[in-house]
Amino acid sequence: MSASLLVTGSIGIDTVRTPFGVSEDCLGGSSIYFSMAASFFGPVRFVGVVGADCPFDLNKVFAGRDVDLAGLEIRPDSKTFRWAGTYAQNMDDRTTDSIELNVLAEAPPTVPVAFADSKFVFLANTMPKLQHELLAQIRRPTFVAADTMRCWIQDHLGDLKSLFKKIDCLIINEDEAKQLAEEQNLIKAGQIILDMGLSVVVIKKGESGSLMCGADGEKFLLPAYPATEVIDPTGAGDSFAGGFMGYLAQAGKTDFATLKKAIAYGTVTASFTITDFSLNGLSATSRAEIDRRLQNLRKLTSF
Amino acid sequence: MSASLLVTGSIGIDTVRTPFGVSEDCLGGSSIYFSMAASFFGPVRFVGVVGADCPFDLNKVFAGRDVDLAGLEIRPDSKTFRWAGTYAQNMDDRTTDSIELNVLAEAPPTVPVAFADSKFVFLANTMPKLQHELLAQIRRPTFVAADTMRCWIQDHLGDLKSLFKKIDCLIINEDEAKQLAEEQNLIKAGQIILDMGLSVVVIKKGESGSLMCGADGEKFLLPAYPATEVIDPTGAGDSFAGGFMGYLAQAGKTDFATLKKAIAYGTVTASFTITDFSLNGLSATSRAEIDRRLQNLRKLTSF
Repeated sequence: MSASLLVTGSIGIDTVRTPFGVSEDCLGGSSIYFSMAASFFGPVRFVGVVGADCPFDLNKVFAGRDVDLAGLEIRPDSKTFRWAGTYAQNMDDRTTDSIELNVLAEAPPTVPVAFADSKFVFLANTMPKLQHELLAQIRRPTFVAADTMRCWIQDHLGDLKSLFKKIDCLIINEDEAKQLAEEQNLIKAGQIILDMGLSVVVIKKGESGSLMCGADGEKFLLPAYPATEVIDPTGAGDSFAGGFMGYLAQAGKTDFATLKKAIAYGTVTASFTITDFSLNGLSATSRAEIDRRLQNLRKLTSF
Repeated sequence: MSASLLVTGSIGIDTVRTPFGVSEDCLGGSSIYFSMAASFFGPVRFVGVVGADCPFDLNKVFAGRDVDLAGLEIRPDSKTFRWAGTYAQNMDDRTTDSIELNVLAEAPPTVPVAFADSKFVFLANTMPKLQHELLAQIRRPTFVAADTMRCWIQDHLGDLKSLFKKIDCLIINEDEAKQLAEEQNLIKAGQIILDMGLSVVVIKKGESGSLMCGADGEKFLLPAYPATEVIDPTGAGDSFAGGFMGYLAQAGKTDFATLKKAIAYGTVTASFTITDFSLNGLSATSRAEIDRRLQNLRKLTSF
């Protein structure tokens, strides 16, 4: 039975340089990619904040999609988060050219009262203290997943570990997992992170796919969807999380078989994001296309 | 219907240093790992050459296994191939400390007349000219696979490309595939290499698993078997090839469904090799253990 899904995360003005071109001042941010990805599976409750300078009309961006923007806050005296980055020739190594936290360095947005009964929740990457504050505004969620990054693991480990005791699932990159677990072997790292109080750990390995570890020792390994045209990998991780959480909320359950299928949906959803700059690749697809790639991924990986 | 399988490759005296210890003057070489791996699936015809200094009795090494050593040549005035290498902390980066080609720099061994009717053939990594000479001694093989390495791609590309027109399958590492195809995208690289005249290309990605491309556009992606204890990765690639070719020869066919299952067998067979130094991990297992891991790998990757 389908359940409500809420996301909190960034909205950004991105400038992305790849070997294929430059996309200046385009729409980005974790909550944007997540919401677009999750919207193929069911309604999304959006919580995020921008400054008065934000040039994007999110009502238009999400037109025709069931994304409830009641949690979008526009702060008149603040500036929108900005990020600029450059991808290397291998499309894997990324350098951050500049970052302006702006409104993200202020108080987090308020979760609307109408969203407080959300059952599936994704806390996109931000300072762990803010993730705690955002989560505290949700009454009794069924399944909460969070993302994080190197600097929080390094400097805010206490807040992060206390967050793990309140949530169900962590979705992180390979390097972050190794750093957090202080362990180079990824299978062992997954187990060490699980033991921090989680019931599911999802480790994203970029073009090498993903690994999921469950609390009862279950494991799942899935290659990335084979891509011959990678134009801009920005947002792939958040699109993966959006497909994953979107499918779980649609299914309304989180047994390991459902979690496996959700990983597969996350994988194929992200495969559309990387085919173009900003949201262009993802917004041009359909649930039917996503399902076709899911069937193909099954064929590509089964023996 | 089961078919004959022949391997030609090196026999080495290896010294391996890993973060877990040192194994001095142990038995190694591509044909050794390949034969041990393939012997779990059916008989193996062995072709290789050592010098008079070889301290290993291969009859003892392969005792109780159906490995026909009629193609083992001991050259009284030659010295055995020696290799020494060190693995980095991540167990992935490897430095060659020293290499003495010795007998491998001489004429290749002769394929015994009784082996000339072999149907499945694996030409392990050596100078492409020697691979041509070895292959010329097999009358009418059904399926020939070869391995190669960076220096041959760089300096003997003509010989290599003419070899591809005579064989069916190339099994190489990710870096070698990118170098050979002059293409960073691995899916595209696989297609470019196929177009050099092959019908199957297998690209090994170490702990990220493998990719197989077939001539009719078929593809197969498989993660590596999840390993928590990696003691020595030496021989993993040749064990993979041994499991792959061993299963194909046992099955006696090479349609894509059989090739996929062969990749899975190669993957799990190699997973035993890396658990200990030299042949210790591989020789301690059984076909029943290999089959158990195959079932587990299917469970770990299906959704």
